[in-house]
Amino acid sequence: MAEKKLGKQTVKLSNPVSISSTYSIVGPKEGEGPLAKYFDMILEDEAWGEKTWEKTEAKIVKECVAGCLGNEKVANADIDYLFSGDLLNQCISSSFGIRERDIPYYGLFGACSTFVEAMSLGAMLIDGGMADNVIASTSSHFCSAEKQFRFPLELGTQRPPSSQWTVTGSGTALLSSGGEGPFITHVTTGKIVDMGIKDANNMGAAMAPAAVDTLYTHFKDTGRAPSDYDLILTGDLGVIGKKITNELMQSRGIDMKNNYNDCGCLIFDGDKQDTHAGGSGCGCCATTFCGYIYNQLKHKKFKRVLFCATGALMSPTTAQQNESILGIAHAVSIEV
Amino acid sequence: MAEKKLGKQTVKLSNPVSISSTYSIVGPKEGEGPLAKYFDMILEDEAWGEKTWEKTEAKIVKECVAGCLGNEKVANADIDYLFSGDLLNQCISSSFGIRERDIPYYGLFGACSTFVEAMSLGAMLIDGGMADNVIASTSSHFCSAEKQFRFPLELGTQRPPSSQWTVTGSGTALLSSGGEGPFITHVTTGKIVDMGIKDANNMGAAMAPAAVDTLYTHFKDTGRAPSDYDLILTGDLGVIGKKITNELMQSRGIDMKNNYNDCGCLIFDGDKQDTHAGGSGCGCCATTFCGYIYNQLKHKKFKRVLFCATGALMSPTTAQQNESILGIAHAVSIEV
Repeated sequence: MAEKKLGKQTVKLSNPVSISSTYSIVGPKEGEGPLAKYFDMILEDEAWGEKTWEKTEAKIVKECVAGCLGNEKVANADIDYLFSGDLLNQCISSSFGIRERDIPYYGLFGACSTFVEAMSLGAMLIDGGMADNVIASTSSHFCSAEKQFRFPLELGTQRPPSSQWTVTGSGTALLSSGGEGPFITHVTTGKIVDMGIKDANNMGAAMAPAAVDTLYTHFKDTGRAPSDYDLILTGDLGVIGKKITNELMQSRGIDMKNNYNDCGCLIFDGDKQDTHAGGSGCGCCATTFCGYIYNQLKHKKFKRVLFCATGALMSPTTAQQNESILGIAHAVSIEV
Repeated sequence: MAEKKLGKQTVKLSNPVSISSTYSIVGPKEGEGPLAKYFDMILEDEAWGEKTWEKTEAKIVKECVAGCLGNEKVANADIDYLFSGDLLNQCISSSFGIRERDIPYYGLFGACSTFVEAMSLGAMLIDGGMADNVIASTSSHFCSAEKQFRFPLELGTQRPPSSQWTVTGSGTALLSSGGEGPFITHVTTGKIVDMGIKDANNMGAAMAPAAVDTLYTHFKDTGRAPSDYDLILTGDLGVIGKKITNELMQSRGIDMKNNYNDCGCLIFDGDKQDTHAGGSGCGCCATTFCGYIYNQLKHKKFKRVLFCATGALMSPTTAQQNESILGIAHAVSIEV
């Protein structure tokens, strides 16, 4: 068996990888939510001076990566790889956002799990001696996502209570072989879980079994229990998916009630902000982590966090062809 | 600097990674081309019994992965990671194709560069001690790609001579820490190159500068010259992109005329098969490699190959919004 493997899905890094800096940019709605004070930049409007939502999203990525590099205090030449992805067809906000960056680039698609996919691959390349510094970045935009996945915004289509609200924003993290942490110590990579759920307005339910599969595997592989973490954080299951995850873990004998939360539940105040089941999108867990969670780790309010991002692998085409929604979840352990 | 880095973009693996098996499935048109005898399976028609092109493409991926695992001679449990990607929105042929595989999964998007992106990441994880066996798989389908990127097939729209023909097919490779080779020895990761080209019917011209950037960097980083390789293989630039690549390399003082070819030029007989500038799509270089090139390496007809896959990072939306076509190219050195 590969030397760093614990069980089939978990890698224990030989040398923990530092998350040396983060940056987050969010839209105005996220800037009115409970995590507002933790974001690095809050946009005044959803367009940010661009003519299309896609160009806005690419600009958010561009500026978020620039912010993470301290507005060029860290040079492109010091970054070995940039991993990024988003929800748009052919991941255009990532590639157009970083096109002027002179950095080797790997594009990813893991839907809303992409941020932890990027952190996982980046941390493993650093631990493998292939890199010293890696950027992980993801984004989403409410307007570009609604336009592509659901209905034209102009229609004002009513949304069912189980639907989630795509976060406008981008989170970027700089991972480094040296640094003061917080540190990524373990990587648990998820498998596709298909429970046959077909309701594209209830992504939380579709993704929850994948979160459970990855979390359960992580505890089994590492011999850890939920009590070993200050926070177990999924993203982005929302209110419904969080409840299902809690129940399914309980049914497998694992109690996470005391220290479990979800980025989709944290980023909005559902009652006041009319966001229904909560936040979603590649930008949801990325901004929640790069803003709020990273701050709490830096201030040692959390000392050990299990961060598990969940993705729904589907498209309007698969929905129209009556396919189910595939779930996937990737997790990293982070400690100070 | 990271211990395995040669220059900024190239990693020299400590222990070369074996390409232990490959499998290729192609459509009927590819099965009438010059490489027919090297493919493992040739479909009789483009639908393969499915009701939609997307379902067909997913089935091709599913069966191609199964074929590479020797129809279950190698168990899922022995595979640490599966990397795959394709051209469809949200990479659905990959995720739906492998949804029943009980293997940790990382989805990628690098357009037609994805196959080498998958090989690169897989090889680096194996060399880093995180994995023993990794699957790399990509696919494309002429009909699903035309439907999504261009025009409904039923229109019979005429194609300009510079356009390329999306290959129907999938190639899958099994990378292993042990094995008899051929071996991946170096990984050169590409950066996005934007030369401002906007003609979506001339992808070869858009991607050629990225190929040149990565090839030039590879030679510089490794100290090698084209003559160190039996074959330098790009994919999928087609006739026009190949010519541009040759000229641009020549202008930078590197002569590749004697041993350079392109998967898009190899897979079809352009004169007889009406494929205009040549093959393209994530399945083009994947099937050309997993069929023809792998066979030639196994029989020591080629002893050292530089395999550089090129991708066009764009979407119909970016084309409609008057954005340029971004190019990227990733390369691996392979030797017996």
